[in-house]
Amino acid sequence: LLGQVRKDQHIEICRDQDVEASDRFTGFQRVQFIPEALPELSFDDLNTEQSFLGTCFDYPILITGMTGGVDKGTEINRRLALAAEAYNIPMGVGSQRVALDNPEYAPIFDVKKYAPNLFVIGNLGFAQLKQDNYLDLCRRAVDMVSADALAIHVNVLQEAIQMEGDRDFTDILKRLETVCQSLSTPIVIKEVGSGISSNTAQKLLETGIAAIDVGGRGGTSWGYIEGLRSSSSETMELAETFRNWGIPTAYSLVGVRALAPQLPLIATGGVRNGLTVAKAIALGADLVGIGLPLLRAALQGEQETRDTLATIVRGLKVAMIATGSRSLRDLEQHICLS
Amino acid sequence: LLGQVRKDQHIEICRDQDVEASDRFTGFQRVQFIPEALPELSFDDLNTEQSFLGTCFDYPILITGMTGGVDKGTEINRRLALAAEAYNIPMGVGSQRVALDNPEYAPIFDVKKYAPNLFVIGNLGFAQLKQDNYLDLCRRAVDMVSADALAIHVNVLQEAIQMEGDRDFTDILKRLETVCQSLSTPIVIKEVGSGISSNTAQKLLETGIAAIDVGGRGGTSWGYIEGLRSSSSETMELAETFRNWGIPTAYSLVGVRALAPQLPLIATGGVRNGLTVAKAIALGADLVGIGLPLLRAALQGEQETRDTLATIVRGLKVAMIATGSRSLRDLEQHICLS
Amino acid sequence: LLGQVRKDQHIEICRDQDVEASDRFTGFQRVQFIPEALPELSFDDLNTEQSFLGTCFDYPILITGMTGGVDKGTEINRRLALAAEAYNIPMGVGSQRVALDNPEYAPIFDVKKYAPNLFVIGNLGFAQLKQDNYLDLCRRAVDMVSADALAIHVNVLQEAIQMEGDRDFTDILKRLETVCQSLSTPIVIKEVGSGISSNTAQKLLETGIAAIDVGGRGGTSWGYIEGLRSSSSETMELAETFRNWGIPTAYSLVGVRALAPQLPLIATGGVRNGLTVAKAIALGADLVGIGLPLLRAALQGEQETRDTLATIVRGLKVAMIATGSRSLRDLEQHICLS
Amino acid sequence: LLGQVRKDQHIEICRDQDVEASDRFTGFQRVQFIPEALPELSFDDLNTEQSFLGTCFDYPILITGMTGGVDKGTEINRRLALAAEAYNIPMGVGSQRVALDNPEYAPIFDVKKYAPNLFVIGNLGFAQLKQDNYLDLCRRAVDMVSADALAIHVNVLQEAIQMEGDRDFTDILKRLETVCQSLSTPIVIKEVGSGISSNTAQKLLETGIAAIDVGGRGGTSWGYIEGLRSSSSETMELAETFRNWGIPTAYSLVGVRALAPQLPLIATGGVRNGLTVAKAIALGADLVGIGLPLLRAALQGEQETRDTLATIVRGLKVAMIATGSRSLRDLEQHICLS
Ligand SMILES: Cc1cc2nc3c(=O)[nH]c(=O)nc-3n(C[C@H](O)[C@H](O)[C@H](O)COP(=O)(O)O)c2cc1C
Ligand SMILES: Cc1cc2nc3c(=O)[nH]c(=O)nc-3n(C[C@H](O)[C@H](O)[C@H](O)COP(=O)(O)O)c2cc1C
Ligand SMILES: Cc1cc2nc3c(=O)[nH]c(=O)nc-3n(C[C@H](O)[C@H](O)[C@H](O)COP(=O)(O)O)c2cc1C
Ligand SMILES: Cc1cc2nc3c(=O)[nH]c(=O)nc-3n(C[C@H](O)[C@H](O)[C@H](O)COP(=O)(O)O)c2cc1C
Repeated sequence: LLGQVRKDQHIEICRDQDVEASDRFTGFQRVQFIPEALPELSFDDLNTEQSFLGTCFDYPILITGMTGGVDKGTEINRRLALAAEAYNIPMGVGSQRVALDNPEYAPIFDVKKYAPNLFVIGNLGFAQLKQDNYLDLCRRAVDMVSADALAIHVNVLQEAIQMEGDRDFTDILKRLETVCQSLSTPIVIKEVGSGISSNTAQKLLETGIAAIDVGGRGGTSWGYIEGLRSSSSETMELAETFRNWGIPTAYSLVGVRALAPQLPLIATGGVRNGLTVAKAIALGADLVGIGLPLLRAALQGEQETRDTLATIVRGLKVAMIATGSRSLRDLEQHICLS
Repeated sequence: LLGQVRKDQHIEICRDQDVEASDRFTGFQRVQFIPEALPELSFDDLNTEQSFLGTCFDYPILITGMTGGVDKGTEINRRLALAAEAYNIPMGVGSQRVALDNPEYAPIFDVKKYAPNLFVIGNLGFAQLKQDNYLDLCRRAVDMVSADALAIHVNVLQEAIQMEGDRDFTDILKRLETVCQSLSTPIVIKEVGSGISSNTAQKLLETGIAAIDVGGRGGTSWGYIEGLRSSSSETMELAETFRNWGIPTAYSLVGVRALAPQLPLIATGGVRNGLTVAKAIALGADLVGIGLPLLRAALQGEQETRDTLATIVRGLKVAMIATGSRSLRDLEQHICLS
Repeated sequence: LLGQVRKDQHIEICRDQDVEASDRFTGFQRVQFIPEALPELSFDDLNTEQSFLGTCFDYPILITGMTGGVDKGTEINRRLALAAEAYNIPMGVGSQRVALDNPEYAPIFDVKKYAPNLFVIGNLGFAQLKQDNYLDLCRRAVDMVSADALAIHVNVLQEAIQMEGDRDFTDILKRLETVCQSLSTPIVIKEVGSGISSNTAQKLLETGIAAIDVGGRGGTSWGYIEGLRSSSSETMELAETFRNWGIPTAYSLVGVRALAPQLPLIATGGVRNGLTVAKAIALGADLVGIGLPLLRAALQGEQETRDTLATIVRGLKVAMIATGSRSLRDLEQHICLS
Repeated sequence: LLGQVRKDQHIEICRDQDVEASDRFTGFQRVQFIPEALPELSFDDLNTEQSFLGTCFDYPILITGMTGGVDKGTEINRRLALAAEAYNIPMGVGSQRVALDNPEYAPIFDVKKYAPNLFVIGNLGFAQLKQDNYLDLCRRAVDMVSADALAIHVNVLQEAIQMEGDRDFTDILKRLETVCQSLSTPIVIKEVGSGISSNTAQKLLETGIAAIDVGGRGGTSWGYIEGLRSSSSETMELAETFRNWGIPTAYSLVGVRALAPQLPLIATGGVRNGLTVAKAIALGADLVGIGLPLLRAALQGEQETRDTLATIVRGLKVAMIATGSRSLRDLEQHICLS
């Protein structure tokens, strides 16, 4: 259960410490909106709806998958699920591996019991693809949460920095292809802070994945968190060295979008408010994933979780009305890059 | 009278707190003057006169329209009016809406009683255009202060951030056109911190307005003030997000001037001294509006208001003499952009 | 004697307070030397000699003209003169106006009594050119110190900011031309912190002056000093506004040099060490003027003055040897601009 | 023995004080890696081997030559040597001059007694080339440590700043050529913080040297250390002036590599972790030299020295795996410059 101890530590570190890229640079800082002083719109005209993998959501926002640990996981997931349902947006769960190994933990992840209509994205790591029974694991993960999609996260940097981390990253692409062919559930590939390069995206496109979460640099830095929770001064130093590693979220998004004009894309990593959601949409994201701020809110309470989402949604609407954008699609007409 | 309570709060917040764009970036920072070491001019040769809407002023400076609230408004307006008259410059009053609803407040705005020769710009918000009797409201606003021009301010960002703000921004352009056609008083469209884009300017030109105040970003941030006065943590966060929203004043000025070479233009937003007044003139402004520093001076006293203007005027003259600019028009020969 | 009181204040302010451009930006920051790891030179090979107005000096350094006031002026000038003579470099005296009005002060300026072989540059302000007897004043200034050249300083910004400052800057160029024609002593035009623009340089070239001191921005800020010594809050604010006014010394130097490839040029303003002396030479200066650091040293003592010069001279030599520059002329082969 | 006193001071200053370029700018800050989220590699696949002067090392890292002084030198060298042997990387010793003058100090440098298979680079300064018996000195230095290569360091800036430093840098190139022809041991030319310009590199290529250590700016600043250890305020000021002198390590590396595509190159100066080692390799270095961090570790203990290397090696491997680089050569495919 080492993995689990580790996850529980993560929650506290993420709540209390500065776990983000030290400069917070996501690339979105270089995107500005040009306001429209006379938008000729009313708030009621704003259309924030977005389709993703065949489902229509009220907002282009994803509560990204986060492990809440075994102690607090159930309650965190409940709070996030209720908020997601209230806003009719999709939600990812954290890595289900612990519950594959220990089925008694499965209920932690089963958020549809609170929110039956929620669009839920299951979650496994690439490490599970390396098991012999990987197809079975994927199917069990989907079933465990009645997943509408399954995210497979890749986090090479984090694993590489960890003493006890995975050391073998071979053979993933082929198995990914098999998973995509064998499961009817759409598969999402999900970076968690290093971003997806155009090069990587090209290889992923050939596997038949349904969507990419570019998971870029600028927000929560998992390489750095490994240092914060480590008692080894070597690991701490290594983590410090790689704290700001990765492609900034906005750059990764733009690069992958250029390559795959039609592919459903999620932009996660350092998004902290509705204005940045609007920027990510303007740059081509279908959904915008938000992690840390919602985790922190969920640790405080149900209402706090909802309030945090409310503020983000209001920010998105303010950006839309103040640029005269009736729909999400209009936003890209109003950006300028610096 | 909620609106009024709000305005009174504004005054105190503006006096005591940091209410400007956090980086003060107006774009004027990128404009430098090239000095002339041997100007071959005397101070007496300097011509700082400027015509605007057919009237000639001693300086190209506008005391921009600011609501002083019902408590302090009368005295603030008196002090500003006396200073404006002393320097023979125009003055705008703050939003007259409260006095349209409550005629007993009309005297607050009637600054010609202290300064009969003052050029006064009346003030309404775009929200008043949405009333059925909008033409009547405009006429009454003009009459209330014997206005020489009427400014209609647009502040979508501020309204959008406010809980109790307007939510409907439709149908303004058409009514604006009607106002321009129906009133003999010239109409000024006035942003209050987000700046006017070229796109917006193009639409405005078709309505028949007499002048634009580009009201750009870098000075008083009304979006941010909404957060400072709010007790809702959501609104506070939203306001923080949008604190630096908008087109920097200098950029907005240059963009609109390029589009409308002859249109009378006012540049307001973050102008804090005579050197910046000179830069705005060099970039094509006819008048340069100043708010916050004059409000703060007016809250201190009659003499302080006059002294603040005196320093600005001296700064303008120093910039002129030190660049060898005999007239305001000469200033643009001496700038360089970085 | 108001002027004199003012000058004595200046000394104390310059000694104790931060009187330079707030960012110290002289433009030399953008000039880097490319080192030569194997210079194939010995220190003894270094030739730091420089000719200026027909005289050959051991170093291309000028102790720029600074008024020391009537109290301390005599001693300051003696210390500077002894140091200049020890290093065989030229020295300027501060404005001699006070001694033209009050001949009993003439001995303050007469530095040849301590250093008979010193090359001395006399000093008057453009204001003296506005007197009817300006030619006579110039001749008396030259005679007073047996000047080898006469500097006429222009300081429009400083005068303009001062309450009691000159207000009339007309008719200087014509009289300057007459001075150049009438005196056999070479005339140097000297800015004191705003820099000389190419435009101004063009006009100066037509007057027949013998040399220009570009006196650019980045070092001692006379506009700002006016604020520090003023009790008027208006003047203080004005001075703050114009603290960083002017063309950075390096930019002014490059601009004027491009226009006048052969004209003797002095670069003064913010030069603080021998490395910057080397940069100024590489950009085309004949002499490099240094003020504030030498004034502060001179206020401490004779030895301190000499030590300060010694450090600057060593710095120049280190820059030469470390770039493999045998002579001053070689330096320009080794710069790169960023 | 003045030189020796000086070296012992150096150690303490280097341990306790901030002796690096104030901005740490090495140029490597402008190099970023583009991650590969799915590297299809395992840690075991990584090949970090590098050949240099005919020998193959496990990592492309050099413990650069550092004098440890006579007191602590023996122990420092022992600790460094054991760590170097453990990782199968080469090691340079500090300047052997003291032991040429005083043969009783030779054992300090003889690190092969602890680590018989170590690749050892002997060390002399260019100053020794100026002795009449320079060939003999070089041979004795090689013999003293059974050197596999001999580094001749050039440090014009440091010498020039020192009061007691060398003042004559002539005739080095010719003697260097003679040394290269006369000794069978390969000769490495080594800057210590100013970097090698393309110009200098061109001259060096003609002497027949076997390798260059570009020794650029950004790390330990020897000019500055001269100031820290000096009691002369002049030298202190001079050192402050030249603290950031030199070509940033990455720039020097790229420049020399462009000129000499095949020449063995070492990049030293400001490298502090394995990520920067990877960047230097990607820019064309064969070996990457590290000084200060290893000196500080060696002053703490044997284990600390090994741990410091371990962290650097892990950092290099993390950079390789996270960019999908199987071998060092692959790294350059994954950089982007900003
Ligand atoms: C506490 C915490 C736990 C996380 N656990 C997972 C996980 O189990 N699986 C996963 O794919 N991503 C996980 N993530 C990564 C997030 O999905 C997201 O990619 C990352 O936090 C970047 O977004 P942010 O900057 O908005 O936090 C976790 C993030 C946090 C903060
Ligand atoms: C206290 C205060 C009240 C204001 N009230 C109004 C108003 O009623 N109507 C209006 O058009 N602008 C109003 N403004 C906006 C100003 O006219 C101006 O556009 C803005 O303050 C930016 O200029 P500044 O940076 O110089 O302050 C107000 C500004 C302040 C500081
Ligand atoms: C105390 C002091 C007095 C000065 N007095 C004069 C003066 O009388 N005449 C003049 O031409 N310049 C005068 N200057 C200006 C200097 O010659 C020089 O142009 C200026 O100080 C910029 O150089 P710096 O940055 O090295 O100080 C004075 C400067 C100082 C610091
Ligand atoms: C304490 C100390 C002593 C050094 N002694 C020598 C030396 O004797 N010979 C030499 O060539 N370089 C010497 N160096 C320079 C280093 O080899 C290296 O070029 C320099 O420190 C830059 O690398 P760094 O930034 O990693 O420290 C010394 C460096 C240090 C820190």
